[in-house]
Amino acid sequence: MKSEMNLLEYNLRQLRRSYKKEYENYVVSRVFHAVNKYDDIQLVTQQYVKRPEGFALTDLYFPQFKLHVEIDEPHHDVEQNTVLDVNRELDVINAAEGHRFKRININDTNFELDKLNRKIDEIIEEILTLRENVDFKPWKLGDEYITDENKQTFLQKGYIDVEDNLRFRTIMDASNFLGQDVKGMQKAWFRSKAYPGHYFWFPKFYKNSLWDNKLVDESEFLKDNGCVFGDLIQERPLNPDIKNSHFESIVNSDIKRIVFPRFIDNLGFVVYRFMGIYEVDKMLSSVENGMIYKRVSKRFVI
Amino acid sequence: MKSEMNLLEYNLRQLRRSYKKEYENYVVSRVFHAVNKYDDIQLVTQQYVKRPEGFALTDLYFPQFKLHVEIDEPHHDVEQNTVLDVNRELDVINAAEGHRFKRININDTNFELDKLNRKIDEIIEEILTLRENVDFKPWKLGDEYITDENKQTFLQKGYIDVEDNLRFRTIMDASNFLGQDVKGMQKAWFRSKAYPGHYFWFPKFYKNSLWDNKLVDESEFLKDNGCVFGDLIQERPLNPDIKNSHFESIVNSDIKRIVFPRFIDNLGFVVYRFMGIYEVDKMLSSVENGMIYKRVSKRFVI
Repeated sequence: MKSEMNLLEYNLRQLRRSYKKEYENYVVSRVFHAVNKYDDIQLVTQQYVKRPEGFALTDLYFPQFKLHVEIDEPHHDVEQNTVLDVNRELDVINAAEGHRFKRININDTNFELDKLNRKIDEIIEEILTLRENVDFKPWKLGDEYITDENKQTFLQKGYIDVEDNLRFRTIMDASNFLGQDVKGMQKAWFRSKAYPGHYFWFPKFYKNSLWDNKLVDESEFLKDNGCVFGDLIQERPLNPDIKNSHFESIVNSDIKRIVFPRFIDNLGFVVYRFMGIYEVDKMLSSVENGMIYKRVSKRFVI
Repeated sequence: MKSEMNLLEYNLRQLRRSYKKEYENYVVSRVFHAVNKYDDIQLVTQQYVKRPEGFALTDLYFPQFKLHVEIDEPHHDVEQNTVLDVNRELDVINAAEGHRFKRININDTNFELDKLNRKIDEIIEEILTLRENVDFKPWKLGDEYITDENKQTFLQKGYIDVEDNLRFRTIMDASNFLGQDVKGMQKAWFRSKAYPGHYFWFPKFYKNSLWDNKLVDESEFLKDNGCVFGDLIQERPLNPDIKNSHFESIVNSDIKRIVFPRFIDNLGFVVYRFMGIYEVDKMLSSVENGMIYKRVSKRFVI
């Protein structure tokens, strides 16, 4: 899949995903056309989010404002309240803190065009007002990915932080950003040249031939351990013969893992997103559970 | 199919037909959202039109302004220039006179969002300017059909004219409008009570079990006879045994036919549209060709 695209194609790709539901398409396209006179507002459709009550899919998402719009198609109440079972590969936003959710319920508009338009236009107005805030950070297409061109801004900060939502197109881009200085393809696990005691880890959150890795997402298990979604990574070898040796060889390791899981973003592109520094959690890990890595820091000084 | 709908559903139905082509959907939805703050502008998508050079399908049509917008998707040049073979049942607009066609060629925009938006916005501006004209006739949903509620306006004129694009939902509505005073289902051919020497005719332009009727659309044949699309109706019995008797029994008839062909409009509804007064054309009719009826008047004094 082509990963280079311009703003028009970006818009088309985002809009494309709302064709199946026609009220949603109406709402989404209205918002798009109203705000796209500014090319510095990012709009994302069909964003998977993790909320305290489970996974959800928001129809329209403005990352800069942490604002989500959900559109309730008429006659689909039951379906919409179902908790989603989300493909682990998907780039899920943790919407636990600071995110706001607006809802447009088509039934509530009484199917009147005027009423629906007013509801949509209120949201548009709010977006355009938020854009006037002094702390508004203009978006530029491509900003989602850190590349050689735009990396200086982030390097100057002196740290990387999960909050900054740092995404890279390749393992090479991510590791070189942190001083690795390599070319070409890289493995998913290797020692950092610049940061002693640290390894890079680019886990894939789906069952592949050898591993079954995932972000721990069972709410109770997380809560019991004072954790939220994203804090714990579970790693299990699929071959039962190596469960023991895998556990024994790693459980006492004090290696710090700089973790960039491989996700598929909502346009279908592979992305490696910085999720923090993780260490083996000796309490939670076991031969049965596999290794559990716990996030020890969301920020990494560079 | 439900034939009652409100303005929101009308919009959704119109938009729905442009989902397959994403540039077209982008253009069409942008125009929709810009003009639908006024509920008196009618927008029609995917309108079949007859032009001197053949049938065409216009992506966006404003009946009040006789203005069409055609969107050329990129990389489809050949396909788009193909002459369409149009289902005879379809409600085709004769766009020979006074109609204007605007074209948005996506290739010409260089795939730049800004440029494309500007092109679309020019058209939007033109539409809104045309709406300010003194001779602008506000549209109201349902105006496309003449019913008991709105028929007075047309009756007061003292005539009906093809130019007014009069559409009826049922044979009963159409014939009662012209003084027939009947209830329930009607046949497609019956004598007028109010207008001596006249018959109502509601032909179907597709091959049914008995007849093969059509609007004559071969350009040369029309031109040779000084006619345009819509001027000639060809009627042929499918049973070869009755060709002769059919011809003989009708060719000398001087009955005037008040003709409302049955069409399927672009939202899928059946519509009977007034096309004028027709008489047998003795020159053009033959056992071989079947009967040819020629339009003798586009206006009928009532």
